[in-house]
Amino acid sequence: MQDLRSVFHPASVAVTGVSPGSAGERYADHLLNYGYKGDLYPLRPKGGEFRGLKIFPGIKDVPGPVDLAICCIPARHLPALIQDCADKGVKAAVVHTAGFSETGSPQGREMEAEMVRVARAAGLRLIGPNCMGVYCPRSGLSFASEFPVESGRTALICQSGGNSNFLVRAAAERGVRFSKVVSYGNACDINETDLMEYFIQDGETDVIAAYIEGIGDGRRFREVLGRLCAVKPVVILKAGATAAGERAAASHTAALAGSNAAWNALFSQTGAVRADSLDELVDMMVTLRFLPLPPGGKRVAIMGVGGGMSVLATDECERAGFLMPPLDDQVKHSLRKLLASDAGSMLGNPIDFPFWTMTEDQYRDALKAVLTWDGIDLFLYAAPLRQSEMRLADFVPLVDYQLRNVIGAAAGSVRPLAVVINLMGTGQSRLAAAALQQKCYEAGLPTYESTSSALKAIGRLARFHQARPSSQCPRQAGTSRHGNAGHIPDNGVR
Amino acid sequence: MQDLRSVFHPASVAVTGVSPGSAGERYADHLLNYGYKGDLYPLRPKGGEFRGLKIFPGIKDVPGPVDLAICCIPARHLPALIQDCADKGVKAAVVHTAGFSETGSPQGREMEAEMVRVARAAGLRLIGPNCMGVYCPRSGLSFASEFPVESGRTALICQSGGNSNFLVRAAAERGVRFSKVVSYGNACDINETDLMEYFIQDGETDVIAAYIEGIGDGRRFREVLGRLCAVKPVVILKAGATAAGERAAASHTAALAGSNAAWNALFSQTGAVRADSLDELVDMMVTLRFLPLPPGGKRVAIMGVGGGMSVLATDECERAGFLMPPLDDQVKHSLRKLLASDAGSMLGNPIDFPFWTMTEDQYRDALKAVLTWDGIDLFLYAAPLRQSEMRLADFVPLVDYQLRNVIGAAAGSVRPLAVVINLMGTGQSRLAAAALQQKCYEAGLPTYESTSSALKAIGRLARFHQARPSSQCPRQAGTSRHGNAGHIPDNGVR
Repeated sequence: MQDLRSVFHPASVAVTGVSPGSAGERYADHLLNYGYKGDLYPLRPKGGEFRGLKIFPGIKDVPGPVDLAICCIPARHLPALIQDCADKGVKAAVVHTAGFSETGSPQGREMEAEMVRVARAAGLRLIGPNCMGVYCPRSGLSFASEFPVESGRTALICQSGGNSNFLVRAAAERGVRFSKVVSYGNACDINETDLMEYFIQDGETDVIAAYIEGIGDGRRFREVLGRLCAVKPVVILKAGATAAGERAAASHTAALAGSNAAWNALFSQTGAVRADSLDELVDMMVTLRFLPLPPGGKRVAIMGVGGGMSVLATDECERAGFLMPPLDDQVKHSLRKLLASDAGSMLGNPIDFPFWTMTEDQYRDALKAVLTWDGIDLFLYAAPLRQSEMRLADFVPLVDYQLRNVIGAAAGSVRPLAVVINLMGTGQSRLAAAALQQKCYEAGLPTYESTSSALKAIGRLARFHQARPSSQCPRQAGTSRHGNAGHIPDNGVR
Repeated sequence: MQDLRSVFHPASVAVTGVSPGSAGERYADHLLNYGYKGDLYPLRPKGGEFRGLKIFPGIKDVPGPVDLAICCIPARHLPALIQDCADKGVKAAVVHTAGFSETGSPQGREMEAEMVRVARAAGLRLIGPNCMGVYCPRSGLSFASEFPVESGRTALICQSGGNSNFLVRAAAERGVRFSKVVSYGNACDINETDLMEYFIQDGETDVIAAYIEGIGDGRRFREVLGRLCAVKPVVILKAGATAAGERAAASHTAALAGSNAAWNALFSQTGAVRADSLDELVDMMVTLRFLPLPPGGKRVAIMGVGGGMSVLATDECERAGFLMPPLDDQVKHSLRKLLASDAGSMLGNPIDFPFWTMTEDQYRDALKAVLTWDGIDLFLYAAPLRQSEMRLADFVPLVDYQLRNVIGAAAGSVRPLAVVINLMGTGQSRLAAAALQQKCYEAGLPTYESTSSALKAIGRLARFHQARPSSQCPRQAGTSRHGNAGHIPDNGVR
């Protein structure tokens, strides 16, 4: 069991190195912009003032207790700073500074080891070095000003600071909100395994995503990951999976990457889901958060795409292991009553209505007939945003009309719906398309950039279910304007 | 030899079915918005006026000659309309209307066959039915108002209308401009093979991209594709590559898809490049247009990405068949003079300068030292747009600064440079990122959405060169504000 209360919920935070133009100033700035809720103490030998806060010269000069220290001063000062923190009774420290074991130099390695010795002797926990630290919306703790203020139920464990920025932003744009995110860098003390162990029992977390370059203790990692996978879905992107990548990982976070074969075995033993790129990791976070695919579900109906896209989507379905059954007679019968007579030829799967020939009532009824069809495990609606010859500005409202009705009809369906919105475009219409995407996730629907990436991600979820039929899977949430916090039950087994 | 002058360069165009709210009206609207340069005659039995043009009741009522008829009236009227066109001396017709052989009905098939009989008897050529037709900037011919007005030297042959819209827009956003695009649908007369044959000798076309669902005459297709590949690079996305996709293709454009094994053989026999998705087809159009990779080139240096992205990029390099050699001593020596002393550890590949510690002169000199390094065949600059913890609005100008200097340094380099710009983001910063992308292609540089897609596409180009060392490859063009027309020599062999 890991006690990481001071890491995630510190009542007070000190940021060292808050001098003009420095990384420390930027970090303190982010905490203030984001809205850290506890006591914030900027530190700098010269003293002074930062955004209305008094700057204390050193950690020992802070009047009250400090739970968490965020260390942004040069590496050579770190062992002494950690000693000061220990003396002050600080409980945990994020070492943002780089220049330790990842440099490969004996000095770097020694400074890191010294920090750990000092910290361990005092019972002070360390995150990093060479990392961004912690994002925990509930505490108002963040390493970027613009991260969502709402909490969610996805946790992210990320060895790289840059990638943690990317992953949080990319997932947030598609509605994922986080319980806790840790960018943990060189992992000199708290490592990926400690964090995984913490999330086994964390009541605020339902899904765990991880970007890992290497692990320290393979045996313990396998054991902890196995326990975590037994209770919550876990998706992992393993970087440094090739020989060259392994060398790059060593110089990035001093990580021992481990062979790809060993990792493959680990994935199949534990039931963790593997992602092969940052984009796939985001797709899986979205899928695990929003898609209540029934175990064994393989039958897909695709709507919205016309013509060539439907041929490609059919290829992609088959490649991802899905079936596309033809419409059954009852659905066809319901549709024939609603469609103009010459639309009969369109009654296949993929399903394509000539919505422009129908009243809104007819269109809604047709969608309802399809979305309540019980011969299907999953509906995929692909908004044909870039397939039309129309001006995008004229076309976006038509897609908005379709999407509004699809979302409405989906609300009455027990079967899951996923939406594809291709966000290409360089002008204002791109922003309009992004607004459509937001409408979807606010209605509790997963969105994807292409049918191909959607089917790949959902196919992974299906295989995950197959391997572990009793596993946890978040249920599709209802509509919510302000993120997804609290909408997923802790044990949403279907 | 195919004479398609009337298809691509008609002096006069008639559009049938121009009634309010119809497809014909939309088509005529696009031609006027785009700026068709010849005589345009809208047709409709009732007559009237359309945007200041007199509407004639029928094609025979048009006073002057008509080179190309665009037919948008219901399928059942098409055989008679084609007869009228033949009587009038029309040279070619685009049949936009659907509802022919792709429906699978005997009537649909018969109407299509009847059209072909009438047209062949009169020497009238047909495009379609069930297609968007022709986009040829030089003639001002277009099936979408918003397509680029500039000509380029890439041709696109696309069986699907929706996909042709997607492909033109997606490629145009990354600087590709077109000589001729044909959406040819059911291919009842002019088919993919005729078009390939035409492009063998078309002096306006250097690169051919194709989306194909199926072909009629496999033997002739192989022979013509072989001849085309001998003189120009060809990239093909074959849809309906799975059993289910094959059925979908049959009901989309009545295409006989052919087995995937037969297609694989075809690709290896002819040297055509295979793309597996629309996105990959766009990536290859960009690569073939902008990237002068030297034959045999396998050595890559990656710049710009920090930390975790560089580990992943290293994996992707190895997977795509590239090597990432360490920096050589001379480059290191030049860099050490320009960088602060503690930046020595960063002197690896991927290459990451602490540009914020350098003057612009130093930064430019450092980039120059790297970009003139002759141990490398390709430079990949990945703009770290979404990796920073900074607000995007603050970060875009920093990336702009880097990119400006990278583009400047690249201009003095003989080695090719590719740029990765991830365009995520839902706000105004997304539009700023799109402006950066435009800056790159105006400087003659290919842009990609991810290092992964860049390396995949460039790896395909490398394998293409390997298979055909004497093949044609467009040279990297100079800067141009208004598209790329005329910037690539017809025989740009390196």
